[in-house]
Amino acid sequence: MPPQEIQEIYNHNVQQVLDLTGIFVFAVAGALMAVRKNFDVIGIVLLAEVTALGGGVIRDLIIGDVPPAAFRDLGYFSTPLFAAGLVFFLHPQVERISRTIDIFDAAGLGLFCVTGTAKAFAYGLGPVQATALGITTAVGGGAIRDVLAREVPVLLRWDREIYTVPALVGAAAVAVLVETGQFNAYTATAAAIFAFAFRVLALHKGWRAPRAWRRNSEVRGDFD
Amino acid sequence: MPPQEIQEIYNHNVQQVLDLTGIFVFAVAGALMAVRKNFDVIGIVLLAEVTALGGGVIRDLIIGDVPPAAFRDLGYFSTPLFAAGLVFFLHPQVERISRTIDIFDAAGLGLFCVTGTAKAFAYGLGPVQATALGITTAVGGGAIRDVLAREVPVLLRWDREIYTVPALVGAAAVAVLVETGQFNAYTATAAAIFAFAFRVLALHKGWRAPRAWRRNSEVRGDFD
Amino acid sequence: MPPQEIQEIYNHNVQQVLDLTGIFVFAVAGALMAVRKNFDVIGIVLLAEVTALGGGVIRDLIIGDVPPAAFRDLGYFSTPLFAAGLVFFLHPQVERISRTIDIFDAAGLGLFCVTGTAKAFAYGLGPVQATALGITTAVGGGAIRDVLAREVPVLLRWDREIYTVPALVGAAAVAVLVETGQFNAYTATAAAIFAFAFRVLALHKGWRAPRAWRRNSEVRGDFD
Repeated sequence: MPPQEIQEIYNHNVQQVLDLTGIFVFAVAGALMAVRKNFDVIGIVLLAEVTALGGGVIRDLIIGDVPPAAFRDLGYFSTPLFAAGLVFFLHPQVERISRTIDIFDAAGLGLFCVTGTAKAFAYGLGPVQATALGITTAVGGGAIRDVLAREVPVLLRWDREIYTVPALVGAAAVAVLVETGQFNAYTATAAAIFAFAFRVLALHKGWRAPRAWRRNSEVRGDFD
Repeated sequence: MPPQEIQEIYNHNVQQVLDLTGIFVFAVAGALMAVRKNFDVIGIVLLAEVTALGGGVIRDLIIGDVPPAAFRDLGYFSTPLFAAGLVFFLHPQVERISRTIDIFDAAGLGLFCVTGTAKAFAYGLGPVQATALGITTAVGGGAIRDVLAREVPVLLRWDREIYTVPALVGAAAVAVLVETGQFNAYTATAAAIFAFAFRVLALHKGWRAPRAWRRNSEVRGDFD
Repeated sequence: MPPQEIQEIYNHNVQQVLDLTGIFVFAVAGALMAVRKNFDVIGIVLLAEVTALGGGVIRDLIIGDVPPAAFRDLGYFSTPLFAAGLVFFLHPQVERISRTIDIFDAAGLGLFCVTGTAKAFAYGLGPVQATALGITTAVGGGAIRDVLAREVPVLLRWDREIYTVPALVGAAAVAVLVETGQFNAYTATAAAIFAFAFRVLALHKGWRAPRAWRRNSEVRGDFD
């Protein structure tokens, strides 16, 4: 499929719906993290914005789409504001927050690995690079959120369920779909749902990735 | 006001004076933080450079002004070096450092929210986006400094006086001034001084932003 | 030497060999850090990729070479994958890891301060700015690695041997070589080896940089 055609499909069908949905759910996850860490209302808004827009801004800087969509389209910027407002007034009991963060975060992961990969293709990157950029888009905002909130990024921890693998699967699925000419709004949505379901299942079943081969785990190095 | 005219005013009157002043005061704040954290002379220089130039580099990457001013204009790069040298030899007693960091940081905040917003306008961003980028410019360098020095960024903490709100007010003031055709070197300086005074007052009076509505604050989540 | 000529030498002789070697050794350092911190296999791959490619991506964004080489050339992306695989199966006893990380990291430091400075020259930056960008390229990936792994970046700590100074010396040497027309594949390699040897010697001899003049070191501020 020629880049122009991809860009057309991407712009009209996929981007507007999937991207804003991803921004909304990531913003909810970021705002909930801010509530859990006891940040104030400004911190809630900032963490919502950074979580929701961080991955996409990195993606746009890398492919050279400047200023990034987040600084052009008013909807990109105001959606996290709205999500932060919702969380500020309606957040559930603090005890249940961690689980809720995980679900919203999984939805953002599924959506952004698809839109990130598709946009990278539209800007002329090869399939492997587009997949890598899709993963970057999906995990970037959450990584910035974790760094600012002084958490060890979930994507690095062995004691957490697999996080990057669902994004990798979703991004690779988009790469295959584009290369075989099967990429459209329906298959894109299916790929996003598949990556989301994969992540939720991993959380539910406790799927983990192995640590280094025969590592002597007696020694220091766990989360301090 | 057409973008070209803004750029002209910005380039000749505002940028050279306000930007370099902002870089100097942010560099002092960064260098003092490095002294408080007991970093060596290289760490003092690096933290001064990152605090002073970080926000502007992010701004320039986002609006597409590459290489960023910090990597073109020798003054941008050498000002933090000079500030770091001053702090290295003349820093006050360590006990009084925290208060001094806050004052210099407030001055940088006031100056950068103005120059960041103005430059974003000059590159064609809309008023809301330019305001958002002005805030990013103002808080970006300090956030990178705090992350590198392993502090929770002051802009997220509820137990600290409001930090982002003065930057928001200064940036929004610039947006209103530009939109109404009143933006010039005098009103720009006034907006910077207002944002600075707002931040210093907030520090002095202990103004804080509210945390999430009815959050059960018994539960864990404070700074650990 | 005109920029075009530099670019030619850089592209054909220096970039392919030095850059990929630097990526490989930095990736090994990142993967070993992930093993020491007890991250899982995904964390090992991600930390290898970020350490190896982070500095170069920042450099390419700043000089405006987008998409960055890391997202164009498949070799850039797959080299850290290969290094992570090696470390996963063959990493030495955990007790000896810290020393090994340091040696590989020193090699990456030496190579990247040279390639970063050379590429900055090729894109038209002045000698001081090119030197600054060379240092940024050399220390950027490791700084991102340390932030993600929640270590205080080694380049800021007074209780560690000097880290940035060897990169500064290597980058400045390249700047002098380019300005005097002596820059070629041999002198570039010599500069990289010199910076590497300088860092290893500093580690071996325990060379440290001074802290702030007459700082009252009784007071708090050490690594907590």
